[in-house]
Amino acid sequence: MAAVGSGRRLRIGVLISGRGSNLQSLIDATKQADYPAEIGLVIANTAGAYGLERARAAGVATQVIDHTAYASRGAFETALSEALNASGCELVCLAGFMRLLTEPFVEAWWDRLINIHPSLLPAFRGLQVHERVIAYGARFTGCTVHFVRPAMDDGPIVVQAVVPVFDDDDPDRLAARVLIEEHRIYPLAVRLIAEARVRVEGARVRIAGAPRDDVSLINPRA
Amino acid sequence: MAAVGSGRRLRIGVLISGRGSNLQSLIDATKQADYPAEIGLVIANTAGAYGLERARAAGVATQVIDHTAYASRGAFETALSEALNASGCELVCLAGFMRLLTEPFVEAWWDRLINIHPSLLPAFRGLQVHERVIAYGARFTGCTVHFVRPAMDDGPIVVQAVVPVFDDDDPDRLAARVLIEEHRIYPLAVRLIAEARVRVEGARVRIAGAPRDDVSLINPRA
Repeated sequence: MAAVGSGRRLRIGVLISGRGSNLQSLIDATKQADYPAEIGLVIANTAGAYGLERARAAGVATQVIDHTAYASRGAFETALSEALNASGCELVCLAGFMRLLTEPFVEAWWDRLINIHPSLLPAFRGLQVHERVIAYGARFTGCTVHFVRPAMDDGPIVVQAVVPVFDDDDPDRLAARVLIEEHRIYPLAVRLIAEARVRVEGARVRIAGAPRDDVSLINPRA
Repeated sequence: MAAVGSGRRLRIGVLISGRGSNLQSLIDATKQADYPAEIGLVIANTAGAYGLERARAAGVATQVIDHTAYASRGAFETALSEALNASGCELVCLAGFMRLLTEPFVEAWWDRLINIHPSLLPAFRGLQVHERVIAYGARFTGCTVHFVRPAMDDGPIVVQAVVPVFDDDDPDRLAARVLIEEHRIYPLAVRLIAEARVRVEGARVRIAGAPRDDVSLINPRA
């Protein structure tokens, strides 16, 4: 991806299916004058996605591309790519987009397509994450922004955040704790990419100029 | 497990195969006057285990039970159990013990047998953990003290610690960072058990009176 310098902002597309709380965190970030990315287009695969309201309220262009109107996944994804390209999007951010994307789309946007997942990958891929974290008895969970690869919830990791799990958590309470971090790391990951500080090396990501925080957490603490 | 109160200390057995750095952290903890556990016996499955020296230096009873001297795993494990019972051990701590334990042994010590694993379970079970964490590009790793179940590196989690992974880590550097936390959480887990604050509920552990540290970490931070 080209470096973004001297005031030019990286143009991103955001794909949503629902309420779009991660979209909101990106909208909020792009309102900052010095944020190096802007949202070129928000696409929802269903007209009822509440995130569309958020985009409109922020003056961001929106488009509904209803997957049920297409004869195949391939045709649907071609329409997605055409809309993203037409609006000049250089990076695509999945934000609660509930359609699986097939290999041709992933390859067309290779290293330009990122996702946020509400677990500390590689643990707890898939759905019903917080329920499974609690049932397993994990003491920590978190969230992950990663480049998308054909395998679900896999791909080079840009940023992760970690939070403790408490004995009295239920899935909603845990989800709320993780969501706070999601809203921090998604704009952060986009910023790092827009600043051209992110380099994908095979399965890994390297971040130029990342500070080393030599910290640790223990749960339970005592 | 019986509560330990009024000055009685929980008697633990420690099983080692190698240098025994986690054994050392337990030895150091038991030297504190108010620590609620004591080491009844250190067993190594090989006479050359350096951890035996650590135990002798601390005045702790040791025994070598050489697995190669037994016709079967079952006979070896019976010898382990006999030695542990003869020395009055109520809790068994695996500390770099490199023999897989079979179901009869695990069942005989059910909820009285704990292990420490150098990853944030359920991620990165097995060996060569730090190499795999780095190859995967995980931004966080850690360590886990858990009750042992027949499946390897599985079982109800008592304590976990988390540390960041940095882009320039090699396995040795990462191992050293995780080891610092291992040396904190193993004595902590034993203390929580000795204080009768640990209750296993199915796949999960509940800890009485655990403080809630509502904290988070992000890596990279910026």
